[in-house]
Amino acid sequence: MKLASYRYHGRKSYGIFTDKGIIDLGNKIGHQYPSLKDLLQWNAIDVARQYIDSPVDILAEDITFLPVIESPGKIFCVGMNYADKRKEFAETNNAPTLFIRFPDSQTGHGMPVVKPALSNEFDYEGELAVIIGKPGSNIDASVALTHVAGYSCYMDGSVRDWQHAWFTAGKNWPQTGAFGPYMTTVDEIPDPHALCIQTYLNGILVQNDSTASMIHKVADLISYISTFTSLSAGDVIITGSPGGVGKKRIPPLFMREGDRVEVVIENIGRLTNTIVESQPQQDLLAS
Amino acid sequence: MKLASYRYHGRKSYGIFTDKGIIDLGNKIGHQYPSLKDLLQWNAIDVARQYIDSPVDILAEDITFLPVIESPGKIFCVGMNYADKRKEFAETNNAPTLFIRFPDSQTGHGMPVVKPALSNEFDYEGELAVIIGKPGSNIDASVALTHVAGYSCYMDGSVRDWQHAWFTAGKNWPQTGAFGPYMTTVDEIPDPHALCIQTYLNGILVQNDSTASMIHKVADLISYISTFTSLSAGDVIITGSPGGVGKKRIPPLFMREGDRVEVVIENIGRLTNTIVESQPQQDLLAS
Repeated sequence: MKLASYRYHGRKSYGIFTDKGIIDLGNKIGHQYPSLKDLLQWNAIDVARQYIDSPVDILAEDITFLPVIESPGKIFCVGMNYADKRKEFAETNNAPTLFIRFPDSQTGHGMPVVKPALSNEFDYEGELAVIIGKPGSNIDASVALTHVAGYSCYMDGSVRDWQHAWFTAGKNWPQTGAFGPYMTTVDEIPDPHALCIQTYLNGILVQNDSTASMIHKVADLISYISTFTSLSAGDVIITGSPGGVGKKRIPPLFMREGDRVEVVIENIGRLTNTIVESQPQQDLLAS
Repeated sequence: MKLASYRYHGRKSYGIFTDKGIIDLGNKIGHQYPSLKDLLQWNAIDVARQYIDSPVDILAEDITFLPVIESPGKIFCVGMNYADKRKEFAETNNAPTLFIRFPDSQTGHGMPVVKPALSNEFDYEGELAVIIGKPGSNIDASVALTHVAGYSCYMDGSVRDWQHAWFTAGKNWPQTGAFGPYMTTVDEIPDPHALCIQTYLNGILVQNDSTASMIHKVADLISYISTFTSLSAGDVIITGSPGGVGKKRIPPLFMREGDRVEVVIENIGRLTNTIVESQPQQDLLAS
């Protein structure tokens, strides 16, 4: 089952994404579970599943995608988690590299990804996103995958010239983290480490690997993170991107206004966004 | 004016802290501004100020302090921001080091600070906390201090053996960030860089500096952060700690069960906490 968050006729909703269109759950169970995050927090995926054979309510082209989870309590980003990427960045540390994204840095499938006008090094990173379903602390790796509700694609847009060693300033610009199109529930992904993961820039393959190449596996990441902080339903772990990022190419390859970036993960989805440049004047008006 | 968040007879509230006791604002204007964060978001400090000569409602010893802001939208921690600390850690990067704390890692004045059982390197860091009052993006440094609602003390408890280069895992254990006792409003602190800042461990002075020694000043930090992410009322910036941390002493000096740690900032307050060791069994029950 594929669950999307979206806006339809100005109203925020969520529903089941099918080949024929969207089964709008917001209209059916939204009074009880106002958002996909609420659905997860109430452990009510099975309630959603009861509608899987319902007629389609909305055509896919009529919705505006929101980030799969619009306001996760915690978004963890894992850096340097593919062998090739670690080579590119000469990473030697054995613990998972972890940094944080704020929810207001996210955007949805098909929406503009915003390149900061102040940056000349806006880089793509295609990643597998893990969405937590069952809360916990000190979760043992052997049971960690039972805490996963589903998976999605993430384009972890990285402002390299502001990234420094601790990443916070490079990873939190508005509308730089694209998350979607939808969450594919865990029952359809028996092994999250047997998936082809690819990133395309203007149709050209720029990252190409398998999630089998992750150094720290999904179960280990959940176990590690839950040791020092609790995980809640709707929390998101972005598991790192393969080698091939623009910063380490010769010459470097960065994203510019008008570029189309796509993250494709086998059995999970295809996330597509177009780059627009931020307007510094607008930024000043907002202050 | 000093504004504290607290629990009284099981109820969460906030009020004006005075020498004689607490003027309970929760009971007076809580229907309109349920928390101190709400008060800031509604730009209603002046509403609170109308009660400053009211009779005291509660004795200070009858409240349980909460973190000054219990659930900030964003908590930014600045690392390596005092000259001596930079020397200790051989820091050479010119941009502010920034990492993130989640709100559930906080605790209040007088409450236990929890040393993780898994750590042998639980370190103290006394810091000046800046509480944002007026929201903004791309805030110019020349007007940045007009975005500050007030200041407080912060004990940024650091789990050094989990900190690594990016700090996330070392700075987010439950009840490791003590924030209080209260917010001293900005009108009482004309210059945030003319304050003595000290940390005591079991009554012994272990950090002793002036906020004049900050490399990146408060106004510059607000300007820098608001370039890449928006600031909202109730957001918190913890501005880094002076030299003298336990990790870099010979021999090292870490916090243990029963230790008393105090952060004292001139004209701002005195934050006191006692260390307790976490119970791994409890951790397992929570999972």
